[in-house]
Amino acid sequence: MSRRLKLIVAYDGAPFAGWQSQSHRNTVQDHLERAFRTINGARVQVHGAGRTDSGVHALAQCAHADVGNERLQPARWVAALNGQLPPQLRVLRCQFAAKDFHARFSAVGKVYRYRIWTGSVLPPLEYGRVWHLPADLALDRLRSAAAEFLGRHDFKQFAANRGHRVTDTVRTIRALAVRRHGHVLTLEFDGDGFLYKMVRLIVGALAECAGGKIAIGDLRNRLSGKTVEQSSRLAAPAGGLYLVRVRY
Amino acid sequence: MSRRLKLIVAYDGAPFAGWQSQSHRNTVQDHLERAFRTINGARVQVHGAGRTDSGVHALAQCAHADVGNERLQPARWVAALNGQLPPQLRVLRCQFAAKDFHARFSAVGKVYRYRIWTGSVLPPLEYGRVWHLPADLALDRLRSAAAEFLGRHDFKQFAANRGHRVTDTVRTIRALAVRRHGHVLTLEFDGDGFLYKMVRLIVGALAECAGGKIAIGDLRNRLSGKTVEQSSRLAAPAGGLYLVRVRY
Repeated sequence: MSRRLKLIVAYDGAPFAGWQSQSHRNTVQDHLERAFRTINGARVQVHGAGRTDSGVHALAQCAHADVGNERLQPARWVAALNGQLPPQLRVLRCQFAAKDFHARFSAVGKVYRYRIWTGSVLPPLEYGRVWHLPADLALDRLRSAAAEFLGRHDFKQFAANRGHRVTDTVRTIRALAVRRHGHVLTLEFDGDGFLYKMVRLIVGALAECAGGKIAIGDLRNRLSGKTVEQSSRLAAPAGGLYLVRVRY
Repeated sequence: MSRRLKLIVAYDGAPFAGWQSQSHRNTVQDHLERAFRTINGARVQVHGAGRTDSGVHALAQCAHADVGNERLQPARWVAALNGQLPPQLRVLRCQFAAKDFHARFSAVGKVYRYRIWTGSVLPPLEYGRVWHLPADLALDRLRSAAAEFLGRHDFKQFAANRGHRVTDTVRTIRALAVRRHGHVLTLEFDGDGFLYKMVRLIVGALAECAGGKIAIGDLRNRLSGKTVEQSSRLAAPAGGLYLVRVRY
């Protein structure tokens, strides 16, 4: 009999080609499935809550897998998997979950963080971990613009096409906190779900707005679907994005 | 006429083979000299305050170089050099200095920081940036042991041989602060100078002491030269070490 294992994993996005399995097999999902196969002796499919892109980091991504070896206790799974995984990918915690638990479909919300470095020189240890935007972004303007995205909206103008049609593009952003600490600007998104590249497209638009390139009214029009500006959409780079938490 | 330029540089230690120039030319000094050569048109020698090892990070290393192009102002040098350097190595500031200023010989002190991760699982974004020591290190014991190193001592038992004989091994540690923040232990050394691998050998000994493997008395004996334990010396890994500041 197999049991469903729930995993909390963290990774540095830089060395991997994103979450989702690919033919070259250097994705987070691939590394996890290889580790499971080594320990379990048979193929195990790993389902993640969110398919993060190449370069996007995770502080606490959630995943599940059905494992045959029911004698191995969750704490032992953590050590066994980490023994097989590269150090840039770690299993933080494991627990057995109900059979109907699904990392992706059971999720009721996610928290993403986006980090921007506004200083003129990017510190080397922040390379690949922030968006270097050496500009004088007006914090009050950024906060006003961010408030426009709060609540329930059709975010189809803030989503990239993933090759398949997403029919329901309505999402709710419950909170969007904007904080400054020295040269670091942090935007933290708490929502029921996020479309493909949604956070990065919103951050790109907010940066353009805070930098004075577009008006708050333009953002509002784009969000309400009054204007469609496919060509001018700026997605903030992947390295500044962190999946912080998945809510169930 | 040439002018002496003082540089403050920062780097991620991971991608470089340390500070000092080597035949393969992937050191911090090599990258800086190549950048100067490109801008200046002639060979420029760069002198660093401390020759950090491979893997050791710098938040504010200091260096000097004599540049022929006296019309280029310091702020322009920052931008010009950074335009040539890899992103893991940045010039933070430049200024013209007196002809007798020497990055290494004018230095009157340095501050080094060492970071230890004591939790059982090492977060991926800390990989290469801390020493992963999943142990229950007694903070009070660590502080008591650290206090033994304060002041003026002959540190020859806490120095590695660099291939040349260092005759004067007496150094003064003015402050050694031990702090804990969650799973991170930070040891910050402020001293008039440090011998080769001195910080890493002291941290190695402190960790053994805090973990109960050696007694504080053993440390004291080793420091006073009463015992010589060449074989058992543990150097803490390079990735946890940061050159924080050079004092003049």
